[in-house]
Amino acid sequence: MTILIHDSTLRDGQHAVKHQLTAAQLRNYATAADQAGISVVEVGHGNGLGASSYQVGRAVLNDDEMLITVREVLKNSRMGVFMLPGWGTIADLSKALAHGADVVRIGIHCTEATLAERHLGWLREMGAEVHAVLMMSHMASPIQLAEQAALLVNYGAQAVGIMDSAGHLLFPDVTARITALRTAVEVPLIFHGHNNLGMAVANSVAAAQAGATIIDGCSRGFGAGAGNTQLEVLVPVLERLGFTTGISLYDLLDAADLAARELMLAPPVIDSLGIVSGLAGVFSGFKNPVMERAGTAGVDPRDVFFELGKRQVIAGQEDLIAEVVAGLRKVTL
Amino acid sequence: MTILIHDSTLRDGQHAVKHQLTAAQLRNYATAADQAGISVVEVGHGNGLGASSYQVGRAVLNDDEMLITVREVLKNSRMGVFMLPGWGTIADLSKALAHGADVVRIGIHCTEATLAERHLGWLREMGAEVHAVLMMSHMASPIQLAEQAALLVNYGAQAVGIMDSAGHLLFPDVTARITALRTAVEVPLIFHGHNNLGMAVANSVAAAQAGATIIDGCSRGFGAGAGNTQLEVLVPVLERLGFTTGISLYDLLDAADLAARELMLAPPVIDSLGIVSGLAGVFSGFKNPVMERAGTAGVDPRDVFFELGKRQVIAGQEDLIAEVVAGLRKVTL
Repeated sequence: MTILIHDSTLRDGQHAVKHQLTAAQLRNYATAADQAGISVVEVGHGNGLGASSYQVGRAVLNDDEMLITVREVLKNSRMGVFMLPGWGTIADLSKALAHGADVVRIGIHCTEATLAERHLGWLREMGAEVHAVLMMSHMASPIQLAEQAALLVNYGAQAVGIMDSAGHLLFPDVTARITALRTAVEVPLIFHGHNNLGMAVANSVAAAQAGATIIDGCSRGFGAGAGNTQLEVLVPVLERLGFTTGISLYDLLDAADLAARELMLAPPVIDSLGIVSGLAGVFSGFKNPVMERAGTAGVDPRDVFFELGKRQVIAGQEDLIAEVVAGLRKVTL
Repeated sequence: MTILIHDSTLRDGQHAVKHQLTAAQLRNYATAADQAGISVVEVGHGNGLGASSYQVGRAVLNDDEMLITVREVLKNSRMGVFMLPGWGTIADLSKALAHGADVVRIGIHCTEATLAERHLGWLREMGAEVHAVLMMSHMASPIQLAEQAALLVNYGAQAVGIMDSAGHLLFPDVTARITALRTAVEVPLIFHGHNNLGMAVANSVAAAQAGATIIDGCSRGFGAGAGNTQLEVLVPVLERLGFTTGISLYDLLDAADLAARELMLAPPVIDSLGIVSGLAGVFSGFKNPVMERAGTAGVDPRDVFFELGKRQVIAGQEDLIAEVVAGLRKVTL
């Protein structure tokens, strides 16, 4: 079975450096990834097209600059972009296509497929290759995800899949989800993992074994908190298990070494709050605001994460942190 | 199913700091591990009792000092020691028992069970609880390992298992090996993983699912190169999958935070040579000598690792590096 490797180093990895990758960094890494035979090199602000802003962080380059830079150096790899409807608009997609994006991925919360209908339809009309992913996929059952995936395919997605955005899933969870999608749709399936519970590579393998053929990763696991699936580990592991990626191992390792040397401040580490956010199923972007508010109030940040997990919070609902901290503070007083 | 957690932070972790843990570091970590409800706290030089030497590195404390220090603070956890016959002797075992070691583990290469006969027999005569592990277990087939394990049990081992010393195994390999051991012997089974291919937690889960009931780990993965199985990740993952460890999560996270703060120079990272040594099946202790000799000769250290892997080298055979480097240099000239 051939696995198409979708390299998210220059998009999801940006979260680890607050979207501050420069043109030289994008150029050097994209050149190395292209050389290694990576299928898709995704580039952009960590939160996707149009997301650069005061609230989630301004990228040092705008979308145009990022796409032009990477487009120039890709010879074999295709260029990917990512967009969250609401964060970005049709105008952003239009610009991305004009800059030569080959694969457009639309991300939406795992229960909100309908929000992607207009964007997926428009992209297909434009003749773009369009994929769609269900985010925070631990919050929906395999059956729910299969229903949502079927909607996405009806809207025009040519590949669909799931993101384990909080790094919560264990491999039986992944197997069940990908298997459910496989029975619901006939397009290629995508898996995108995070490493909060040390399972990103194993989960990706489980996804491939269940039928996913597009797997995401980042060099050296570059990404927020515990990081993403470590690409240069994933590829040889898949190859050993009988999958084919078409990627040159030494060139892939060179790209990872370049990422470690030129892109990263420090390699991702699975620290205790990374584990707790993974167990709680809370997006790791909550870490800093939780630490601040819990610290000020004298509340254990781990309790805050588990309570936020019970409330099924998603990105954008950071305001709930204050309420949860106040509630826990009351209990301990 | 109950899993007994064997914490190797203060023994295998020592490799990451060249066996330089001080009495205060041992005391503080052992106190935290005891508080968390860890079953066995292993302590010693990284290569075990009697191994402190110029060649593999002198520990800052001698065996007596390490054992006395940890013994003093353990209230609930049992104290474990490790020994490689040849590196340590019966005299070293005798001292360890006198210092109150509760569990003695004998390690031998995966095909050399007979070398452990005398030590296992002696330990049983002394009334010690004695375990035995087959190291570099990727170098032997499941059937060979089962035969070796049966020998170890005949010699007196009350638990037997395998170490994935080079971090080479993938979970189907682990499942096959533990399953083979389970059919061959009736004593509890041990698994000890390394994280070169990002699979240490997943492999440990596979081992538990195949019937292993004693699983090793180190806080924050503390260990040489890519590190060991990350203990505070493993425990909640096992618990989520239905196993019982009896460990308090928050106390375990506190112990890991203490390890990160007080024991480690830097957290383990899966770097490119760590991946290559894992793929090649070469013990990561070869890294520094390989880098030095390959660098001087202008040979790709990755080629050296893969060639050493073909030759099935084991620790102690570092002299072969020069020969392999010279051979590769000839080819490229």
